[in-house]
Amino acid sequence: MSADPAVDPALPLPVARTVRELRQTVRSWREERLTVGFVPTMGALHEGHIGLVREALGRADRVVASIFVNPTQFAAHEDLGRYPRQEARDAELLAQAGCHLLFAPDATEMYPPGFSTRVEVDGPSAGLETDFRPHFFGGVALVVAKLLNQVQADVAVFGEKDYQQLLVVRRLARDLDIPTEIVGAPTARDAHGLALSSRNAYLSDAELGVARRLNVILRDAATQAAAGRPLPGVERDAFAALLKAGFERVDYVSIRRADDLAAFRDGVVDAPARILAAAWLGKTRLIDNLPV
Amino acid sequence: MSADPAVDPALPLPVARTVRELRQTVRSWREERLTVGFVPTMGALHEGHIGLVREALGRADRVVASIFVNPTQFAAHEDLGRYPRQEARDAELLAQAGCHLLFAPDATEMYPPGFSTRVEVDGPSAGLETDFRPHFFGGVALVVAKLLNQVQADVAVFGEKDYQQLLVVRRLARDLDIPTEIVGAPTARDAHGLALSSRNAYLSDAELGVARRLNVILRDAATQAAAGRPLPGVERDAFAALLKAGFERVDYVSIRRADDLAAFRDGVVDAPARILAAAWLGKTRLIDNLPV
Repeated sequence: MSADPAVDPALPLPVARTVRELRQTVRSWREERLTVGFVPTMGALHEGHIGLVREALGRADRVVASIFVNPTQFAAHEDLGRYPRQEARDAELLAQAGCHLLFAPDATEMYPPGFSTRVEVDGPSAGLETDFRPHFFGGVALVVAKLLNQVQADVAVFGEKDYQQLLVVRRLARDLDIPTEIVGAPTARDAHGLALSSRNAYLSDAELGVARRLNVILRDAATQAAAGRPLPGVERDAFAALLKAGFERVDYVSIRRADDLAAFRDGVVDAPARILAAAWLGKTRLIDNLPV
Repeated sequence: MSADPAVDPALPLPVARTVRELRQTVRSWREERLTVGFVPTMGALHEGHIGLVREALGRADRVVASIFVNPTQFAAHEDLGRYPRQEARDAELLAQAGCHLLFAPDATEMYPPGFSTRVEVDGPSAGLETDFRPHFFGGVALVVAKLLNQVQADVAVFGEKDYQQLLVVRRLARDLDIPTEIVGAPTARDAHGLALSSRNAYLSDAELGVARRLNVILRDAATQAAAGRPLPGVERDAFAALLKAGFERVDYVSIRRADDLAAFRDGVVDAPARILAAAWLGKTRLIDNLPV
């Protein structure tokens, strides 16, 4: 239990609600010459997030996790309002994992009146998610730029589950010279290979059965692409297989260059590649990706 | 003379050409617990810039000045190509002023291949300069975000000569949580009140005589506005006076709220105010501003 005014003694994990409190704690660590890792999240934590915390603990002396359901990355019709919120449970999970500080600001702390800055990352944000969620990466880039500058960590860990986001964040940090190393961590999956996601909580039992086909169909397509089968056919068949498996709508299934998500011009895989997909079950949109 | 590989021993002032070199030097200062001030410039230094360096020296133990003629804040038809460049002389002036490090990166160091991030600050950037140089503040916000993150100074000093820019930079730093205090320093003027500017070097003797009328006309207008005269008349008369004095074109003369550059709704000054103007002499565009 700390006497630091920056922490909330009612919780087992110290919680900073303001940037000022956050920076007080980080500064005290810096004065002890401790390195700092950072894991940004939107809460509703699962084993995937805990893996990110462990990754950060392996790379830094102290780890900050943030929980902020960022309104600027949701469109008006999306699930901002029903996005799961369970901070007390999240804080317990983080404490158990060995996290040292939870940063959980409210929206006014992040976007005070008069806020008027936008950040856009082109390049890796082109296509895929952007074709269906055009405001998404602008919102992500803005909040991540803010969070990275707020925490000033040595290293920040992002999940490969959001692979396009990981590339956008890497590009953002490089382009804006944010002095935090961006590390990607492999996707955590359940016993059936389903990528863990806070949005899985929305799924009925029947939908869960369908959801678990997503990674199987992507793995099969990746195998075909790696064997040299032309990509238009691979992608078309995977698209059809997802619909047949029970997904109601498929936003995309696409095999792209792993380093920048550019399309393969010759329609076959001739460099490190990634297969990425987004598909719908009811009101729930699931994404996944795998190396090819 | 330092043996640090980050400095160029051929010059009296250490020069960093890369972010890596810059950070090595700043890190060595941090290890000695020295505070760091920063003065970003586009070179072609004059007494105004030196005043910014002195301001920074009064606020921090070590001062970095940067020289970078930022291409992203010039439109295609503007004076990027002929903008004055005189680094050796600038370095000498900075050294004499007591500056500790010159950061002078080339364009590839700042914008490497694949660069794809944009930063836009709305709010204080609306109108005035933006009406005539629509890409200007986007370019400024981007390069300032980068420079502030590169240097990681405690304090950065910007001239009030570019008053709208100062407000945009303040908003940018606040919105993106860049942990550097933004300080504005008063405009340096010649004996005739002409605001010092690198672009004054473009002026012929005859143009210089006209240029020196700018601050006189603005001061007169500010006096009338402060006395309660309705702003539309004050602005119209100042506009006409500038043309009569010999300016070939006037982009704007406007009296705005000092804190956010919003217009006065009732057409009279009822809060701290600033008069701002931009006008042309031949191919040279001059700006100035004064408190009302």
